[in-house]
Amino acid sequence: MTESDLPVVQLTPGRWGDPAHPVELPAAAVEALKHLGVRRPAAPVVDPAVRRTAGEGEPAGDAAPGGSTDDPEFTLAAREVLEKVLGAEHVKTDFETRWGHTRGYSTPDLLRHRAGDTSDLPAAVVYPGSHDEVQALLTACDEHRIAISPYAGGTSVVGGLAPQRATFIAVDLRRLNRLVSLDEISRTATLEAGVRGTAAEAILAEHGYTLGHFPQSYEGASIGGYAATRSSGQSSAGYGRFDQMVVGLTLATPRGKVELGRAPMSAAGPDLRQLVLGSEGAFGIITSVVLRIRPRPAERSFEGWKFASFDEGLTAIRRLAQDGPLPTVLRLSDEAETAINLADPDVLGGGTGGALAIVGFEGTRTAVRRAEVAEVLTAAGGESLGKGPGETWRQGRYRAPYLRDPLLDEGALVETLETAGFWSSLPTLKAKVTEALVTALSEQGTPPLVLCHVSHVYETGASLYFTVISAQTDDAVVQWRKAKAAASQAIAAAGGTITHHHAVGTDHRDAYIAEIGPLAVEALQAVKHVLDPNGILNPGILLPED
Amino acid sequence: MTESDLPVVQLTPGRWGDPAHPVELPAAAVEALKHLGVRRPAAPVVDPAVRRTAGEGEPAGDAAPGGSTDDPEFTLAAREVLEKVLGAEHVKTDFETRWGHTRGYSTPDLLRHRAGDTSDLPAAVVYPGSHDEVQALLTACDEHRIAISPYAGGTSVVGGLAPQRATFIAVDLRRLNRLVSLDEISRTATLEAGVRGTAAEAILAEHGYTLGHFPQSYEGASIGGYAATRSSGQSSAGYGRFDQMVVGLTLATPRGKVELGRAPMSAAGPDLRQLVLGSEGAFGIITSVVLRIRPRPAERSFEGWKFASFDEGLTAIRRLAQDGPLPTVLRLSDEAETAINLADPDVLGGGTGGALAIVGFEGTRTAVRRAEVAEVLTAAGGESLGKGPGETWRQGRYRAPYLRDPLLDEGALVETLETAGFWSSLPTLKAKVTEALVTALSEQGTPPLVLCHVSHVYETGASLYFTVISAQTDDAVVQWRKAKAAASQAIAAAGGTITHHHAVGTDHRDAYIAEIGPLAVEALQAVKHVLDPNGILNPGILLPED
Repeated sequence: MTESDLPVVQLTPGRWGDPAHPVELPAAAVEALKHLGVRRPAAPVVDPAVRRTAGEGEPAGDAAPGGSTDDPEFTLAAREVLEKVLGAEHVKTDFETRWGHTRGYSTPDLLRHRAGDTSDLPAAVVYPGSHDEVQALLTACDEHRIAISPYAGGTSVVGGLAPQRATFIAVDLRRLNRLVSLDEISRTATLEAGVRGTAAEAILAEHGYTLGHFPQSYEGASIGGYAATRSSGQSSAGYGRFDQMVVGLTLATPRGKVELGRAPMSAAGPDLRQLVLGSEGAFGIITSVVLRIRPRPAERSFEGWKFASFDEGLTAIRRLAQDGPLPTVLRLSDEAETAINLADPDVLGGGTGGALAIVGFEGTRTAVRRAEVAEVLTAAGGESLGKGPGETWRQGRYRAPYLRDPLLDEGALVETLETAGFWSSLPTLKAKVTEALVTALSEQGTPPLVLCHVSHVYETGASLYFTVISAQTDDAVVQWRKAKAAASQAIAAAGGTITHHHAVGTDHRDAYIAEIGPLAVEALQAVKHVLDPNGILNPGILLPED
Repeated sequence: MTESDLPVVQLTPGRWGDPAHPVELPAAAVEALKHLGVRRPAAPVVDPAVRRTAGEGEPAGDAAPGGSTDDPEFTLAAREVLEKVLGAEHVKTDFETRWGHTRGYSTPDLLRHRAGDTSDLPAAVVYPGSHDEVQALLTACDEHRIAISPYAGGTSVVGGLAPQRATFIAVDLRRLNRLVSLDEISRTATLEAGVRGTAAEAILAEHGYTLGHFPQSYEGASIGGYAATRSSGQSSAGYGRFDQMVVGLTLATPRGKVELGRAPMSAAGPDLRQLVLGSEGAFGIITSVVLRIRPRPAERSFEGWKFASFDEGLTAIRRLAQDGPLPTVLRLSDEAETAINLADPDVLGGGTGGALAIVGFEGTRTAVRRAEVAEVLTAAGGESLGKGPGETWRQGRYRAPYLRDPLLDEGALVETLETAGFWSSLPTLKAKVTEALVTALSEQGTPPLVLCHVSHVYETGASLYFTVISAQTDDAVVQWRKAKAAASQAIAAAGGTITHHHAVGTDHRDAYIAEIGPLAVEALQAVKHVLDPNGILNPGILLPED
């Protein structure tokens, strides 16, 4: 089975992944959790619909859940505006649909979902079917001051789907699901924003092409979301980041359409594509993207390499990143993550010792490249573990996040965060973030396990991805908030960026402001004022409201 | 001799290149020009200083040339402001210095220079010595509403040094000429903006590194100019464009400092580095740049390949650009350029027939890569011409623009322009631009020779670079303006970008506005208003004043 055979998965609200293929925690893992002080039962899961029916009081600040017009701020007039533009069948205000579009999939999101917390509930969910309908919708919403939040795959883990307004509507882009055009000479494909990652691969596979973008959210995420959040996939060493694949895009804004990208590269002013990429719906809704595509790989192979330590492995993968040859996939787990091996739940708590690297090859002549890479890694102290660990990783490449839900069920707190920096800064960055997480959670009586890996490399630096597991306290949302704040401060102090591929949303907004500085924030807000003069687009996401 | 051995060249005003090594037109070329109707003598060169001394009237709209306070709008008070910030020794108002900072090196610039046209003369030239001095200067100029234009190498060919104000000062960055830091682990170097290309290579060579950026302006241009204009060098296939080398930068603006780039790549919002790159001094003065560097190549080799036609060659180089392996240098001349062979003046008018490609390799294991590339090119119909044409190209790689001055001396009009597009658009783009140039110049009684080459390739497209030669009319500035307007319209109609690596300046501004559209222009102006609220930065360059 290859990436293009995976189905489009309809994620379950509040629970990650393909509901048809849940992951169960191995018994050994449950046993291991006890060493962290993890104890069931965690807080019971509350059904907000049931709670509503029972007439239970709402938490302060919540929008009232319920039927079609239950949001007191969302008037019949507003509904009529939307129906006029899109047709009544494409405007939903039933509770189930709204609840299914509430927040994303960060651990705090899942915890709030479990608690039946109906804050962040959109007042309506609308389904435009084309760029022109998105444009008409934005024009109407602008006129009537209806705040909107774009929604495609819904896989945000940074609060990117929870704009800071009591009343807003979610604009679900799933009907924008077409291949608009394919240019086989230029090797570009124009895809609408609502095309899911799996659907994009299936569509392109029919023509013999691949995008090569396989983030861990691949089963749920969409083209528009990839673009709006600067997603980076597991094959980024070979295929690049998503923002590097984009050669053109179309943006609908309350002020009208912006079309960018007449050539792969240009010296005609700033690269405005790079201003829209990562704008997270604050400047407009990306309705289609022109993407560089590649022929489907003739061969694929993944293998494992063992290094005595993370530091030794880091030097080895830096050598490949700087002097080549670059494999398609290049990852390195630290000693702790290697021991746990999240990619292979069956050996959870086992592992091979040292630091495990996964090296993958796609394309043609992979045997030649494998031999060249093997030479570099061996010279750097690596020991080949053969294809076994590589194949295990490949089979589980989208499965690690599935473990989070059963871990939460067991009463564990589990969450991830990531950063990036230049190579010389990485050892300190890793140490400081780990220390901050350990301290912040230990102070709350829940000393954590902190795992780390590198999964995206560049000539001048790399990403660091942390997984944190501890026992839950009574209020795990607050518990994690404290840990996250400490980690964010450590990232800033060590000179890293607040996010390498998870985006800003609301969770990283304050750290982002500090990272780029007040003048740059003001410049971005000025851009927003031009494109969104009434501030209806994703208010409070990425940028503070002013 | 390698690139790092080339000296920093002090360009002569109004005449391109190293004055110590002028190029003479071969007699055969002079003969060949007669077929285009080129006749000497062209307009005599006028010394504006002599003209001034003789008391001759100035052209309308000119600032009066001459001594320290000759610009009637440039007051003693303004001079005192500058001297207070930088010291009197770093504020020059003598005519020779100002004339030496007037305009750049487009053919119209050279023609106006020859005519002694003193419009565009800066009122003063100032020399800050550090970021802090640039910052203090901008703060003072902002307070006193003194318009400024950054000046580093001075090699603009798009009117980038002629802001649309009767009175402005040129900020010459030559004293910002230091290597600030070198991070050998991350392979980054921080260089100040005034470091010339040749100096950057010499500095890095001392440590065993290269930037690998070798545009045709290499002998004159600077790091800050490369960044502000999105320069692309002849080795872009191997080393990338300059904007791809930048991982961080510092910008001084009237509102204060902006520092960008904490990691090679980030998902923290829009990539603001890409907003500053290409901003041509309209948003601030780039004072230093953090650049990705590479080890100096152990081997270098350049060779020629012959294709039956440009179209055949285009398919061949597209194959390399899309499926690899990519050489370091990859260029393809069309049949007309191959016949003329500007890179080798000795065979001007000769040539080998068909379409000549130059393929260069730098780094390690070049023999292996050469063999792989040869396999691809042979399969695509190419015939190896061996190292002869490659070496000839290498030796002349910065010399072609030197020919322009003796050609102008002979009474020829010669100028270049460039664009880029996606592969599928290139044949039409080339045909339409050529047709527009031929028509526009033939209508003026001067049918031209139009030559074209591809010199920068990407997976999804490539650049097209045109050289135009015809006889001059009585007003060659107007003559070229008509031809350029026709070519620009053709580029827009065929979907290309108005410039691949020459930037916008004033010459491309209207085409640029049309290319990105009114909303994007408004967004950029909003950014400018934040950073430069009083509009003192390069007024009218890149963006229209509003």
